[in-house]
Amino acid sequence: MSVVALSGGIGGAKLALGLYRSLPPGKLTVIANTGDDFDHLGLHISPDVDTTLYTLSGLANPVLGWGRRDETWTFMETLERLGGETWFRLGDGDLALHVERTRRLAAGQTLSQVIAAMAQRLGITASILPMSDDPVRTRVATTEGELDFQEYFVRHQCRPVLTGMDYRGAPGARPAPAIAAALADPALEAVIICPSNPYLSIAPILAVPGLRDMLKKASAPVIAVSPLIGGKAVKGPTAKIMTELGIPVSPAAVTDYYGSLIDGFILDQRDASLADGLKSTVKLADTLMNTLEDRERLARECLAFAKELKRP
Amino acid sequence: MSVVALSGGIGGAKLALGLYRSLPPGKLTVIANTGDDFDHLGLHISPDVDTTLYTLSGLANPVLGWGRRDETWTFMETLERLGGETWFRLGDGDLALHVERTRRLAAGQTLSQVIAAMAQRLGITASILPMSDDPVRTRVATTEGELDFQEYFVRHQCRPVLTGMDYRGAPGARPAPAIAAALADPALEAVIICPSNPYLSIAPILAVPGLRDMLKKASAPVIAVSPLIGGKAVKGPTAKIMTELGIPVSPAAVTDYYGSLIDGFILDQRDASLADGLKSTVKLADTLMNTLEDRERLARECLAFAKELKRP
Repeated sequence: MSVVALSGGIGGAKLALGLYRSLPPGKLTVIANTGDDFDHLGLHISPDVDTTLYTLSGLANPVLGWGRRDETWTFMETLERLGGETWFRLGDGDLALHVERTRRLAAGQTLSQVIAAMAQRLGITASILPMSDDPVRTRVATTEGELDFQEYFVRHQCRPVLTGMDYRGAPGARPAPAIAAALADPALEAVIICPSNPYLSIAPILAVPGLRDMLKKASAPVIAVSPLIGGKAVKGPTAKIMTELGIPVSPAAVTDYYGSLIDGFILDQRDASLADGLKSTVKLADTLMNTLEDRERLARECLAFAKELKRP
Repeated sequence: MSVVALSGGIGGAKLALGLYRSLPPGKLTVIANTGDDFDHLGLHISPDVDTTLYTLSGLANPVLGWGRRDETWTFMETLERLGGETWFRLGDGDLALHVERTRRLAAGQTLSQVIAAMAQRLGITASILPMSDDPVRTRVATTEGELDFQEYFVRHQCRPVLTGMDYRGAPGARPAPAIAAALADPALEAVIICPSNPYLSIAPILAVPGLRDMLKKASAPVIAVSPLIGGKAVKGPTAKIMTELGIPVSPAAVTDYYGSLIDGFILDQRDASLADGLKSTVKLADTLMNTLEDRERLARECLAFAKELKRP
């Protein structure tokens, strides 16, 4: 058996970790959003990929929720003293990943190759794939003008009111080479769309031409996990964005958004009363992932749901 | 009054600090060797400039003799774990300088502008100038092949036997813009060639077309401080290199090397017996700079010597 997960950053990586720990080594493939990637201080930074790398290797910072544990901040403190740009916080250890990735990319390696090498170095037995080796950059239109995703997300902390988004470069991007094989694997048992922001984390992945079609042709059911609990996102701007875009902040809007792409939807049990209105086969579960056990339990529920939904 | 110093790395910066502390603010210009500069991990690194910046700002690491004090090493440790190149040690704080310089250079600033901005940020009132804003790269020919300077100096720790050197790019390089005015200043009282390695640290500076001529036309005397004490260099490969190049390891060889460029030579008092053989006006001094007081004392002796040698 094998499983493919589509994931954005922190929330998605939590479930990816649960799946990673619930599956035999080598059986999980995570397709990570790279629409959030950006060039900063001359470095290629892949926030969602890195969160996945750190989460699966046990290096994620449990206090900050991003970056590495046991991190030091001498670089950032010094950069501030030198008048550099410090709105995007880069820990000293985190920086090593960005410097090494940038160096390898400049030497001609693909993002897939770089991530695979880093994952191996960190002892990760899952395949972590970028959605594409080609650059896709999420841009958000806001009432304060158009912004790069990280400008919006980190620098402005999602304060500007969103009026739209664009996944620049997506039309010409190709899925990362290993994605096709992962989704065509006859042993594939489930494709899990993690409870990441559908519009900012999953949409860029689905915007890569060919990827949506590969998902449709996969032999395993595609299951999305609701990113909302009680009309709110556990973390991040999902609910705020839905409101600003005029979308009802409800699981129904999410299932409508994924439409025929998904075969099943995991709804938080707190939202059980909303199950009837959903245009998808629904399974209730506790989707809140505070502990490691929560992540593993939700992963197992996803896998069990996939067995029930098995495509013909 | 104003003073110009020509300097390489650690040994030269010691005297530059002595001069800096002995002169009123704004009166010292240090022309630093950039032949040691190199691109590493995608970063532009200027070891001699940085040693000067750190030394004059009081940030130099007193234990290592290079880099910054109160440094942390999380970046390097992580880079090692990721399989990156770690032979050139970059502290977390040091890295901020390299990243910020690289970013500014990529944005179109000149090396002079970047160094001036960094010096100002670090509260340095001396002018620190690169010998040139154009790239000059010291290459060494050795019995093990031709090497970049940092490969030879750091990676191979000067072990390969030197057979020659080349200051690549020097013929087409222009002196940094502010050098001409510093050397033409009517208030100039002294030009001090610090006790850096003449062949690897001072020679690249002198190889920049026009610079030698500016030194000759300066209204102040040019004084070199011997890089040798008792036939040895205090630090670094000066004596080893001289031997390998078939040059006698003696102050006479150094004065011969500088020739008519210098008006005076400060010889270490331990080498007083060698004074007669030197083709330069000689002043004896204790050139060993262990303490801050040593640096200031030697600086004062240089300045006093310059007064004696005043050009007509």
